[in-house]
Amino acid sequence: MAIELKELTKRSENYSQWYNDLVVKADLAEQSPVRGCMVIKPYGYAIWEKMQHILDSKFKETGHVNAYFPLLIPKSYLSREAEHVEGFAKECAIVTHYRLKNAPDGSGVVVDPEAKLEEELIIRPTSETIIWSTYKNWIQSYRDLPILCNQWANVMRWEMRTRLFLRTAEFLWQEGHTAHATMEEAQAEAKRMLEVYADFAENYMAMPVVKGVKSANERFAGALDTYTIEAMMQDGKALQSGTSHFLGQNFAKAFNVQFVDKNNKLDYVWATSWGVSTRLMGALIMSHSDDNGLVLPPHLAPIQVVIIPIYKNDEQLAKISERANAIAAGLRAKGISVKYDDADNRRPGFKFADYELKGVPVRLVIGARDLENNEIEVMRRDTLEKGNRPMDGIEDYVANLLEDIQRNIYAKAKKYRDEHTITVDSYDEFKEKIEEGGFILAHWDGTTETELRIKEETKATIRCIPFDGDPTPGKCMVTGKPSARRVLFARAY
Amino acid sequence: MAIELKELTKRSENYSQWYNDLVVKADLAEQSPVRGCMVIKPYGYAIWEKMQHILDSKFKETGHVNAYFPLLIPKSYLSREAEHVEGFAKECAIVTHYRLKNAPDGSGVVVDPEAKLEEELIIRPTSETIIWSTYKNWIQSYRDLPILCNQWANVMRWEMRTRLFLRTAEFLWQEGHTAHATMEEAQAEAKRMLEVYADFAENYMAMPVVKGVKSANERFAGALDTYTIEAMMQDGKALQSGTSHFLGQNFAKAFNVQFVDKNNKLDYVWATSWGVSTRLMGALIMSHSDDNGLVLPPHLAPIQVVIIPIYKNDEQLAKISERANAIAAGLRAKGISVKYDDADNRRPGFKFADYELKGVPVRLVIGARDLENNEIEVMRRDTLEKGNRPMDGIEDYVANLLEDIQRNIYAKAKKYRDEHTITVDSYDEFKEKIEEGGFILAHWDGTTETELRIKEETKATIRCIPFDGDPTPGKCMVTGKPSARRVLFARAY
Repeated sequence: MAIELKELTKRSENYSQWYNDLVVKADLAEQSPVRGCMVIKPYGYAIWEKMQHILDSKFKETGHVNAYFPLLIPKSYLSREAEHVEGFAKECAIVTHYRLKNAPDGSGVVVDPEAKLEEELIIRPTSETIIWSTYKNWIQSYRDLPILCNQWANVMRWEMRTRLFLRTAEFLWQEGHTAHATMEEAQAEAKRMLEVYADFAENYMAMPVVKGVKSANERFAGALDTYTIEAMMQDGKALQSGTSHFLGQNFAKAFNVQFVDKNNKLDYVWATSWGVSTRLMGALIMSHSDDNGLVLPPHLAPIQVVIIPIYKNDEQLAKISERANAIAAGLRAKGISVKYDDADNRRPGFKFADYELKGVPVRLVIGARDLENNEIEVMRRDTLEKGNRPMDGIEDYVANLLEDIQRNIYAKAKKYRDEHTITVDSYDEFKEKIEEGGFILAHWDGTTETELRIKEETKATIRCIPFDGDPTPGKCMVTGKPSARRVLFARAY
Repeated sequence: MAIELKELTKRSENYSQWYNDLVVKADLAEQSPVRGCMVIKPYGYAIWEKMQHILDSKFKETGHVNAYFPLLIPKSYLSREAEHVEGFAKECAIVTHYRLKNAPDGSGVVVDPEAKLEEELIIRPTSETIIWSTYKNWIQSYRDLPILCNQWANVMRWEMRTRLFLRTAEFLWQEGHTAHATMEEAQAEAKRMLEVYADFAENYMAMPVVKGVKSANERFAGALDTYTIEAMMQDGKALQSGTSHFLGQNFAKAFNVQFVDKNNKLDYVWATSWGVSTRLMGALIMSHSDDNGLVLPPHLAPIQVVIIPIYKNDEQLAKISERANAIAAGLRAKGISVKYDDADNRRPGFKFADYELKGVPVRLVIGARDLENNEIEVMRRDTLEKGNRPMDGIEDYVANLLEDIQRNIYAKAKKYRDEHTITVDSYDEFKEKIEEGGFILAHWDGTTETELRIKEETKATIRCIPFDGDPTPGKCMVTGKPSARRVLFARAY
């Protein structure tokens, strides 16, 4: 037990190292031999699967269907939308050949120079171009609209500095791509999906988010507006957790996708795209976890309750197991996922530490004396509090406890964020306060010039222009020019 | 209606064209602008999602967990296992560069020659090599075994001749990769997963399969044994629908994955891999569909029941809708997926043809007179039979009908297969009969030489050495040498 705990770096010592340690030691993911690509291990993938399942249901409830588009994109497609190619060309994995052959010297295989592609193919960094080239054939009239497609897929962006989950060359995500007859409908769709993301972040990830719109400089390459949810990590840095883009008619124009409207007039189609990725895993980990390991919100924990027996002999174990299995069955009947860990090759102390590390929300321990007293020891992972409870009715108690933990984790994260969100009026104060981390609400004159100057001088970026909060106009803290309202600054992942 | 039906080529005229027509017209998939890669459209993807969901549950029930490994594989990894590289090197998509730059002449983007990878990366054609290079770090002792991982992923094999679902450059699949302490355990796992596939094929796809083992020549590149399920399409050709491989210690040796066993001895780990792909979509389509379109087994149909109103005015529609929605709710309460199609921009006849084309198993039609008579028209897609039924108790009737359709589709496919499976003893007769399509059980001397001769002369391959059926020895139909038992020949997809 002690060994496990010692090996996890403390957050206060080195937050970045703590994160890496935790991802690896909690068996979530690891670096692969391929530069910048990760292996998502079964425990990490189980959390991602829960995320997928919940999000997928929400997409379907809002009328979307899934489809699948090719991994590879002809190079020329990227160039069709000027800003899009500017945004992605510099980090593309490029397929140039389609065959290997035996090396003449017998040393292995080499690329066959005769199998060179006429046009190179790009591994999708995002799929707007391939999808809009396809939509062209699907859309003739307003009767073909809206198209509300989502895709679960892998994408690749050749990042130079990578970190597990937060920034990897290959990552998993979903990307929604919708086509609409009117601007209003597309804008409403982009905002609707941001609300879906915000609801998921808050009610499942227990992660409070600020909803808002990006400044022009921080927009998705090819979008007219990018909506975002921004969360605060425990080091005070911001993490962009999901984005939804109003693309206007940019991609319809790039791929010449027109439709006949109700008045028999030809017009370009309006578009949105929206996505969240395995980056959410990083956000989840950094929002709640502590120096003992992961803290998972019950709504996303693959194992919600673990039951551990403490026994001296087989006879005791048999009696404890009988009771433990009955409790496990009772919990499962309530839809709670339970693991009864009676493995005899690990001591209870080791198991305790391991399930703490893995963030299992509730631990139940049953010993021989507990059985006599008709009691059970209950430990909650979020506060590490433990105490004895009567066995009778333990299922209801645990079901309520899980919801209480879910609420508490959210409340704790929200308290932290609110305490680390300040309002600042002078640029000097801004420079001082930004060093302490956290969100800063400040006035800005709305120009990219000022935004870039702030970024260069302080490493802080405009995370968003919030939808909510104080809408009072003021004066830019840097230039003194008029500001429509305060915007949200932070250093970010 | 007439137009739709006319456009679908008849099976008897051109089976291959019928298949392509059907895939496109039923909105299952279409060719993409990227050579050999398909777009899986929402209706096709909905079927694939049902397949995924059922298979995934079965994998989990048998103790497997999901994980995710990188898309890209270092070129040198392929060479580690000699047969494996031989099998896949000639059809690999190869990533050689990681950046584009603006063309000097302003014509778009070009590959940046300075962004050349030191070692080329292959888009996975299958993941044994990247996974076993990872397992090396996960396995030290017998306590770390077994590892029972599955991955849902896209893979790429640069096929020269492609057909939607049946053979595409990129396809979706699952690949299980397991690691075991003993040969026996690995062999049992490989066979267990073949049983899972056979159960899925027969009870969900309603597709009878022959289970067996491949001849040495038809084995997976790197396997010691390949188990297979083989189905018969309506043109008498075989379609390999799922394979499970006993890999021995080949990949453990290639990647030096050893473990300490219970007796403290060092040994190489034993392996299996197994997979099914979107090729199953092709098998499903070709097993049951007819000249009117798709015939889907109810267990996999995204829409199991469609309800269509026939009305002359809004008043009638309102009354019909009230009743239709009540029936839909009753069916949904039984777990049946229902679509009530009251769209006013398509005539009933068009809807009838469209849902026939899409293979919806049961169609209910309600008109004004039906309402008066308290009746409803029921049409079953498999036989196209229709008749009136009392509205009362229609939910139970439909629930039973769906199961009846599921059984009937299977029985029909099995009857077809059994009628097209013959036993042949002379090579002359074999050459004659193979022209008629179907499965031929014949004796073979067990050599690759004879197998290749038969393939060259007749285009028939050994689909498998069946697990079941007549085990009597005999003499090879070609060479007259001893044969252990009859094996299954066919021309195949």
